[in-house]
Amino acid sequence: MFISDNLSSRNGHLFFADQDTTELASQYGTPLYLMDEDRIRKNLNIYKTTIRKCFGKDSGVLYAGKACAFRQLYRILQEEEVGIDVVSAGEIHTAYQAGYNLEKAFFHGNNKTDQDIAFAMDRRVGYFVIDNEEEASAVQEEAAKRRIKQKVLVRITPGIDTHTYEAVNTGKVDSKFGNAIATGQAEKLTERVLGLPSLELKGFHCHVGSQVFTEDVFERAAEIMLEFMASVREKLLYTAEILDLGGGYGVRYTEDDPLIDIETKITDVAERIGITCDRLQYPVPAVLLEPGRSIVADAGLTLYTVGSVKEIPGYKNYISVDGGMADNPRYALYRSNYTCLPAGRMNEAFDKTYDVVGRCCESGDILKVSAALPKEMKRGDILAFCTTGAYNYSMASNYNRIPRPPVVMLKNRKSYVAVRRESLDDLTSLDV
Amino acid sequence: MFISDNLSSRNGHLFFADQDTTELASQYGTPLYLMDEDRIRKNLNIYKTTIRKCFGKDSGVLYAGKACAFRQLYRILQEEEVGIDVVSAGEIHTAYQAGYNLEKAFFHGNNKTDQDIAFAMDRRVGYFVIDNEEEASAVQEEAAKRRIKQKVLVRITPGIDTHTYEAVNTGKVDSKFGNAIATGQAEKLTERVLGLPSLELKGFHCHVGSQVFTEDVFERAAEIMLEFMASVREKLLYTAEILDLGGGYGVRYTEDDPLIDIETKITDVAERIGITCDRLQYPVPAVLLEPGRSIVADAGLTLYTVGSVKEIPGYKNYISVDGGMADNPRYALYRSNYTCLPAGRMNEAFDKTYDVVGRCCESGDILKVSAALPKEMKRGDILAFCTTGAYNYSMASNYNRIPRPPVVMLKNRKSYVAVRRESLDDLTSLDV
Repeated sequence: MFISDNLSSRNGHLFFADQDTTELASQYGTPLYLMDEDRIRKNLNIYKTTIRKCFGKDSGVLYAGKACAFRQLYRILQEEEVGIDVVSAGEIHTAYQAGYNLEKAFFHGNNKTDQDIAFAMDRRVGYFVIDNEEEASAVQEEAAKRRIKQKVLVRITPGIDTHTYEAVNTGKVDSKFGNAIATGQAEKLTERVLGLPSLELKGFHCHVGSQVFTEDVFERAAEIMLEFMASVREKLLYTAEILDLGGGYGVRYTEDDPLIDIETKITDVAERIGITCDRLQYPVPAVLLEPGRSIVADAGLTLYTVGSVKEIPGYKNYISVDGGMADNPRYALYRSNYTCLPAGRMNEAFDKTYDVVGRCCESGDILKVSAALPKEMKRGDILAFCTTGAYNYSMASNYNRIPRPPVVMLKNRKSYVAVRRESLDDLTSLDV
Repeated sequence: MFISDNLSSRNGHLFFADQDTTELASQYGTPLYLMDEDRIRKNLNIYKTTIRKCFGKDSGVLYAGKACAFRQLYRILQEEEVGIDVVSAGEIHTAYQAGYNLEKAFFHGNNKTDQDIAFAMDRRVGYFVIDNEEEASAVQEEAAKRRIKQKVLVRITPGIDTHTYEAVNTGKVDSKFGNAIATGQAEKLTERVLGLPSLELKGFHCHVGSQVFTEDVFERAAEIMLEFMASVREKLLYTAEILDLGGGYGVRYTEDDPLIDIETKITDVAERIGITCDRLQYPVPAVLLEPGRSIVADAGLTLYTVGSVKEIPGYKNYISVDGGMADNPRYALYRSNYTCLPAGRMNEAFDKTYDVVGRCCESGDILKVSAALPKEMKRGDILAFCTTGAYNYSMASNYNRIPRPPVVMLKNRKSYVAVRRESLDDLTSLDV
């Protein structure tokens, strides 16, 4: 029932980060995104400490902002001294406004516009991760204009199928991202980048997929990347300093998902890198990992208020809540499963099943199919969805012209607003 | 190739609503939502004229704002004197700010919060479409407090399977919406509403699904609803004035989709209603239809700029554009197909296939699989996606912290901004 240890039950109420979720719901209203600040810092530190221990001081963690990004989060990342993976001018701008030092930022993505490239250089983003030929030329041109030498990585597709959902699997040969080793395109782009005078190639990046549980996928990716790097050294006389292995270890959404021990996993990768570098006589590079989901997912919880409980005899039961696919489109997009708990009825038996659905005028607006909940659910009850810290706030829309919920941070048994609730006037602020 | 007649090609350029799309792209930047104002008005008038002709002056069209809603659109709706279907306080607020007369608004949705109900009454929304028991009580309570008599419809599920995608099929018995005739719940809720002193029941609503092409689904729905109404008359001595048949006829996304003749379709429904009312000796009610998609879809076109063209020998070709699932999540959600045209290369042969993908860091960020386009596509080319007027702007998110495109209206060979482009500062305007 409690899929992470920042959840507990007291006097029939669900507690998250040591705070009564029903009280938070009445204080801030629903729908409400909660984030456990201590859990974010703890998750960051597991990565940070383990990576430094295994790979040395030049190695580290880059938080992948696409999982969740707002100013206060970048302040925390700055305090924790971790790097970041950014994918847009919007992420760069948010980090910049938060006072984050963008020297430690790596700019990703399969399509950086000329405007994005100029903006990122204005903001002194440390590294560009070059995805394709056109981008290499565009970054070269802008850097030359500014008379700077821009540090870059080249994105490689190692050709690994991680058996995760197709939508989050990005390391196989047939990908919109990067350049495949198998087709010779990885080497070709590397050669081109080495020949561009305003680019300084620092190493290589790959990303085998998100929500990875498969046994040794990062080890295999590291080995393939090192073999590629050794071949590049031989053919192009270039030795890389950085190996960026991308994200990201899987997190537990339900009790069916395994609990991953990040420390053991990273140690295994380190071991394989050590052995491979020995075998290839390649100097061990600085290693970067780019977790997003596994930093913020279990630091998040969403609260909803029940509006209606509908029983259709012979069919099924429905609970409609005051949020849905506008604040969490992951069931609609990927059929993602979550753990759903009745925040004020934790002492009751969960002996009835309901489909928990959202308020959007669309049948596909489903949050969870067949949730086990108490028999007496009614309008006004609070439902909690666990592990919503990643890809909920960041993917939220105003579908059905519904304002986005606020993000409230929990720390030391206190709470504070990090992103305020969108108002009706905010919704029309762009309308002429 | 031209799936609607507001598209054409001149001198190798794609024209939309008689304007050169490549010029619009350079004037306003990309990604860019374009909307053909005359087409919106024309579509509204086909419904309006046909419905009045077939069903008399109390009948009419309610535009379903969930397809697309912004202030300027409500101004057009007000000018065209059509009613609206609203599903949230946000839609009500937008219409109100536009000066729209909300007496003609019907408030839908499976979960109206107490706050929504109060807000809608503050704004004098004409009709509430009661979805469930709890809502009937909540509307009664608020209306009693204000000493008003609130006009309502009751939402019925007629039990029709429209064979559209599951996500947009809402009229079958097992639905989060409404009350099934088959289970007796429709009658039960009707009886309850008739007994609530502050509610004035005006009739019934059903919605069999969206993007409907099936031959006679509205006819069948109307017949089932009239039979239900006749049975209610017999058992509860209540005769309904309004029959609201919901939305919505299908639109053409690609040449594989049929072209629906709305006028013929509505005439067929009218005929069946006439015959059924005769048979049941039921006075012909005022009939309402709620099109959304079929009003705005073909009035919309989205322009993107190509950032990268990637050929993976032995696999496939990718074109990355500067938008994607953030401004159009419909492929990611429903595998929806669109027609994609090369705005500046219309005279070339479309003899190469590409997957057109978005800029989000996610493999599932796809706009179209296997688009036929010219051989020489390159960074800087403009791509047009047709029929994007519905469920694109309204479903847009800031995923990857990407600002939402502006909505530019086209009218009389002139263009004007209806929704301005979101800025980077807008993105962080809610951040503390």
